[in-house]
Amino acid sequence: MTVDHAARRARLAELLPAREVPALLVTSLVNVRYLTGLDSSNAAVLVRADGSALLATDNRYIGKTAGLDVEAVEAVDVAGRLAEPGAGIEAAHMTVATFNRLGEGLAGPLVPLAPVVELLRAVKDDDELALLRTACEITDQAFADVLGSVAPGLTERDLARLLERRMAELGADRPAFDSIVAAGENGAVPHHAPTERELRAGDLVTMDFGARYRGYHADMTRTVCLGAPAGWQREIYDLVAEAQRAGRHALAPGAGAKEVDAAARSVIEAAGHGPHFRHGLGHGVGLEIHEEPFLGPSRTGRLEDRVPITVEPGVYLPGQGGVRIEDTLVTREGGPELFTKTTKELLVL
Amino acid sequence: MTVDHAARRARLAELLPAREVPALLVTSLVNVRYLTGLDSSNAAVLVRADGSALLATDNRYIGKTAGLDVEAVEAVDVAGRLAEPGAGIEAAHMTVATFNRLGEGLAGPLVPLAPVVELLRAVKDDDELALLRTACEITDQAFADVLGSVAPGLTERDLARLLERRMAELGADRPAFDSIVAAGENGAVPHHAPTERELRAGDLVTMDFGARYRGYHADMTRTVCLGAPAGWQREIYDLVAEAQRAGRHALAPGAGAKEVDAAARSVIEAAGHGPHFRHGLGHGVGLEIHEEPFLGPSRTGRLEDRVPITVEPGVYLPGQGGVRIEDTLVTREGGPELFTKTTKELLVL
Repeated sequence: MTVDHAARRARLAELLPAREVPALLVTSLVNVRYLTGLDSSNAAVLVRADGSALLATDNRYIGKTAGLDVEAVEAVDVAGRLAEPGAGIEAAHMTVATFNRLGEGLAGPLVPLAPVVELLRAVKDDDELALLRTACEITDQAFADVLGSVAPGLTERDLARLLERRMAELGADRPAFDSIVAAGENGAVPHHAPTERELRAGDLVTMDFGARYRGYHADMTRTVCLGAPAGWQREIYDLVAEAQRAGRHALAPGAGAKEVDAAARSVIEAAGHGPHFRHGLGHGVGLEIHEEPFLGPSRTGRLEDRVPITVEPGVYLPGQGGVRIEDTLVTREGGPELFTKTTKELLVL
Repeated sequence: MTVDHAARRARLAELLPAREVPALLVTSLVNVRYLTGLDSSNAAVLVRADGSALLATDNRYIGKTAGLDVEAVEAVDVAGRLAEPGAGIEAAHMTVATFNRLGEGLAGPLVPLAPVVELLRAVKDDDELALLRTACEITDQAFADVLGSVAPGLTERDLARLLERRMAELGADRPAFDSIVAAGENGAVPHHAPTERELRAGDLVTMDFGARYRGYHADMTRTVCLGAPAGWQREIYDLVAEAQRAGRHALAPGAGAKEVDAAARSVIEAAGHGPHFRHGLGHGVGLEIHEEPFLGPSRTGRLEDRVPITVEPGVYLPGQGGVRIEDTLVTREGGPELFTKTTKELLVL
């Protein structure tokens, strides 16, 4: 698969005149990768409004630039090598220290800009969707393969490791993020880190995990029940599932980030559980596990076509337990495409 | 193990008057963790020159602050909640976007400061050394346990996964960084990412990996040979081993970062391989895999006592192969303490 990085840079170049800069100094490493294909821990690229570009990286990575479609120079201080008066910089990524240091060496000021490359990255091309689809397939398959091992006595950490190991065997680069496995009362903590707590009969068990595949991040959550669910468990599960369905159905090119969130949140609020769902509904995924756009009550903006995004409502009852159900989907004209396909029926193990 | 975070904040507070600020707004998440014990993806702490402190984090993490020895408040915009006119900020961590946004809301300016907390972090307390020792033990053990599987036909990726899986089984949080496994000609690329290339008889195989244990990062590299080494392989191995020994012996409280680098580098240069060793000799390890201090030809500063650091010279012959040998050690009066204890004899498998 050959990715057309020059086309990405051309799209970026078209956005620069409206921002009144002759060039953008891109220092976010993920953005550098997106625009050039170079995966490096020390690199920057200057993209000009005429579409030309210059990449800089150090001697550890310069050998990797040979096959790229962009001119590259070797430097240790990569941003310093490329900075020029009047150029835009990525204000959300460049540190104050770097900005001040670069500014001292230039005849004119650098121009802090709001995110630009991130806007491009939100809408994925076919190459990217193919990689993300594979990342989600690995995630689904790992869940299916590990499910038979989910039983009382296994610890949260054991289960996280089983999922991560299986994803690696299936071809993942690595886990897309630190896996969450939360049993029983720990399920009330949305970002619980796995512990030595053993799973027990009667527990709801939430698994939030995903594979990274060639740089692209999948994200899925399922909550299962060990033994027949109690009334409250079944109640919040069905509620979250209904909210998640409403959120998915609201995903569409043109939909507001706030409205999609509200579609799901209103279901939970109507059931009186509004205070038990205190995070945003979802986030874009791609070269980062959390990227534009974000879905939440105070988010602005509208979705475009071909935007991979998560829908992940939850209900968390402190001291008692919780449920979260999350898919990765892609916005499409005619309805979203589901990338994570594991069943959302309550699995009773 | 209870860590005395208040003592760490007190040491920080003592450094603030010399920097002419009444308080430091700490926004580096690793530094927040170091000063408070809170491991969060959204947190900040304001430490005042009188030693008092206020921690801010959002509703996902506020529950985790209950057991900490510092007052905590809930906020989404954690830096905004704590910023006050005249306070120092961490210029190496705060982005230009955040700095400008915070500045707009304040009656007086924030003061960009060079790293302060990082200076404290370089010198480890007993709690930290204990965790790092365990991280290195896991690393050594994983190497020993996997060695029997290193044979022709295994791919670089397979070998990386075996190491990472074994570290997880031995109790690692996760790998300390993306493991490097580089066979044959790939060994000439210092930061090679593992591929599907199979190991072959006659290859030098470099493994650069480590365990993260309760937040602390180990780092070790060994190069082994599949079959009897050719003359050039034995030659560069012995050379790198001699340079690495010289580097280790130069580690001492009071030694200059540049001098330690030179101790190892001069051995390689004397053999005519100076151009084949183009990276720094080593780096501090702790809550980050790369942290202060750094060893290199242009590094300034002197080592202190109780500083964990790597020593990792290499010789890389483009198109042919390479050798790197790396340990994690700790500076001590009377001589460095070796934390990674795997043999540095050339292992012929």
